[in-house]
Amino acid sequence: MGLQDKLKNIKSTGIKLAATTGNQRNDALIAVKNALMSEKESIFEANKIDVSDAEKQGLTKSVIKRLGFDEKKLAGVIDGINELISLPDPIGKVLLARSLDEGLDLYRISVPIGVICLIFEARPDALVQIASLCIKSGNCAVLKGGSETKNTNRVLFNIISKAACSVLPEGCLVQIEERNEVNDLLSCSDSIDLIIPRGSNAFVRYIMSNTTIPVMGHADGVCHIYVDSEADIEMALKITLDAKTQYTSVCNAVETILINKNIADTFIPLFARMMTEAGVKLHGNSEFVQKLDEVCGKEITCEHMGDDDYHTEYLDYACSCKLVDDIDEAIDHINRFGSHHTDSIITKNKDKIEHFMEMVDSADCMSNCSTRFSDGFRYGFGAEVGISTGKLHARGPVGLEGLMTYKYKLYGSGQIVGDYSSGIKQFRFKDIK
Amino acid sequence: MGLQDKLKNIKSTGIKLAATTGNQRNDALIAVKNALMSEKESIFEANKIDVSDAEKQGLTKSVIKRLGFDEKKLAGVIDGINELISLPDPIGKVLLARSLDEGLDLYRISVPIGVICLIFEARPDALVQIASLCIKSGNCAVLKGGSETKNTNRVLFNIISKAACSVLPEGCLVQIEERNEVNDLLSCSDSIDLIIPRGSNAFVRYIMSNTTIPVMGHADGVCHIYVDSEADIEMALKITLDAKTQYTSVCNAVETILINKNIADTFIPLFARMMTEAGVKLHGNSEFVQKLDEVCGKEITCEHMGDDDYHTEYLDYACSCKLVDDIDEAIDHINRFGSHHTDSIITKNKDKIEHFMEMVDSADCMSNCSTRFSDGFRYGFGAEVGISTGKLHARGPVGLEGLMTYKYKLYGSGQIVGDYSSGIKQFRFKDIK
Repeated sequence: MGLQDKLKNIKSTGIKLAATTGNQRNDALIAVKNALMSEKESIFEANKIDVSDAEKQGLTKSVIKRLGFDEKKLAGVIDGINELISLPDPIGKVLLARSLDEGLDLYRISVPIGVICLIFEARPDALVQIASLCIKSGNCAVLKGGSETKNTNRVLFNIISKAACSVLPEGCLVQIEERNEVNDLLSCSDSIDLIIPRGSNAFVRYIMSNTTIPVMGHADGVCHIYVDSEADIEMALKITLDAKTQYTSVCNAVETILINKNIADTFIPLFARMMTEAGVKLHGNSEFVQKLDEVCGKEITCEHMGDDDYHTEYLDYACSCKLVDDIDEAIDHINRFGSHHTDSIITKNKDKIEHFMEMVDSADCMSNCSTRFSDGFRYGFGAEVGISTGKLHARGPVGLEGLMTYKYKLYGSGQIVGDYSSGIKQFRFKDIK
Repeated sequence: MGLQDKLKNIKSTGIKLAATTGNQRNDALIAVKNALMSEKESIFEANKIDVSDAEKQGLTKSVIKRLGFDEKKLAGVIDGINELISLPDPIGKVLLARSLDEGLDLYRISVPIGVICLIFEARPDALVQIASLCIKSGNCAVLKGGSETKNTNRVLFNIISKAACSVLPEGCLVQIEERNEVNDLLSCSDSIDLIIPRGSNAFVRYIMSNTTIPVMGHADGVCHIYVDSEADIEMALKITLDAKTQYTSVCNAVETILINKNIADTFIPLFARMMTEAGVKLHGNSEFVQKLDEVCGKEITCEHMGDDDYHTEYLDYACSCKLVDDIDEAIDHINRFGSHHTDSIITKNKDKIEHFMEMVDSADCMSNCSTRFSDGFRYGFGAEVGISTGKLHARGPVGLEGLMTYKYKLYGSGQIVGDYSSGIKQFRFKDIK
């Protein structure tokens, strides 16, 4: 079946799905949960094929670990589904209630976006999470997972889809397996309301540049920490180490440390030794390398980088370092080289914190804590859809509400506009309690 | 100066503009208002040239009326600026305040989107309104007005820009005059955060299909009224007449009337005579024409249309008519042929109203009132940016808040993620009052 056929009725299915009750969607999640548990052996079996294929292809251990789906990962996704079930229904929230005149009442009500296409990395647990989020929020989902887990994905999708559609409208979940279908998807603006791509920078950027369908997500995460002249040095060391090494391959890991010149002599020797001991390779421009040599002798090695290379996202045990004159040079650097994702200032000066938060044009501006905190779970949003560096619709960590839009409902009793434009009647705006 | 040069620094200007106070932006609006009043003669003079050019080119009277800028229109835009000044500052609203743990406080704060490109029809008052909205909301504006008012636009822009920049950062308003620059704009995703196009369907659709920059607006407005079997006939007549004829050239005017077969014999004779008397030309498929002939004899003429032609947006004294079996056929028709803009049901049955509002996939769903109510001013939003038929970011009539986004600010006191992932610390989410 071609993509056009698969998507032919999805818009109208979306409307039916949006009209289901919160209880029905929770029942669907319960059915999914039960099916995953009772059919777990078939999932594990399919996953063994993917893992063995990956080993034959010589993929790295960390990649193979991500591809795996075992009892522990199953328990994780079941926990996630239970959490989703416990969350309030996102559909039908009254976002505004206003009487325009007697017998003319306006409501803004939350509704699902409709049809969401999610393209995600080779992680079987991601498929379960994403499908569950769409079920909870009443959105049709078009799912394309990484091909390295195609056997696991197929089994998981069939289990989830069958269980969900025992309660919800047939066809509300669609799986895409062929890579070439992704290109076809990009032109389906009649069927798809939103694309959420996850994966490599190049891939996400490709999606963003090749479709007129709205895209939510982030290409890269070049995050910064600025260590100010008034920083608590010990705190700055602890935070930079955490932000760089706690989990290097994620978008909210720090990539560039900006160091105020006034504390360079004190901070750099401690920082450079700490990072080197942790296995982090330092990179810096001529000025930084010179200062490093001056304060550490030649004891610490540092890769030389050009002044225009500070866009680099390592996602690894490496970071860029730079000296700056003051907070404004740091802010200018971040706005120029950053990706508007997450940036943190370390300082005891409250005015500088406010100035930094105001002038840094990023989704998440922080003070005196690790950039790694920018995450839907850590922000207390429960389920996380992803992190958006775009400014429209949703920005920063996106929870369930990022999958929602609203509609207006206006209840009249015979009103016409002519009466108001001629002055026979006047609007009398009043909030409805 | 080329477009690239004009936009080179606009992102950083936007950051400076976002950091201005509400008082500064109100002072800028006062300066703009005063300058418009004191330099009004130069505006009127430039406008005379545009109007005389338009007359020479033989443009229609209604177009020429829209191009004109006189004392009355000046008074209108001054009223608008005064209203904007009276509105609360949209920047800096606390949208969420949550403590994640002791000494780790998260805030979601409203901020301007940044740089907004507005492409609008040949109406000099629109330039003033749009520039004022951007000043109030702290957004840089790239403005391209209809070429038929190029002389008026130039004078207006110079007056507004000079006055605004006496208070606000230089370069926060940019004017584009050449039509070919619009095409260049569409690829400026590094400089422009959002495009709001207004104008003909074809033009808006062209913009939407040729840029990866987010676009907010609507191409067409094929709005419906469904006259149910349980409609109050007199109310249905009054509302359909208003929705069709109160102002025909606007997007929220009704284009298609769907009539339940059970009331056709009563409703159609009254409806057809009323519309014909009002100068509205009826269009209908074979079934409708046959019914019309049956109930009105051949007294009323009706243009025959195919069953697939119901996408038509007349924006004129004309409307499509169709018989439907029931509410569900009406809903299916609207979701298939409509433009997800505004649709209204006329019925006394409350269950049908709820069913219609739930199942019609439009920004504005109404009952027992005219589609013409879907408008920012009538909804009580004050200033209106436009109407969006997209589902992302803003939907339906868009007020000032459609020009805003948010950023997260996280204030820490030394926290690292490692402590939470190792279990040394736990998140303790608490709303901050």
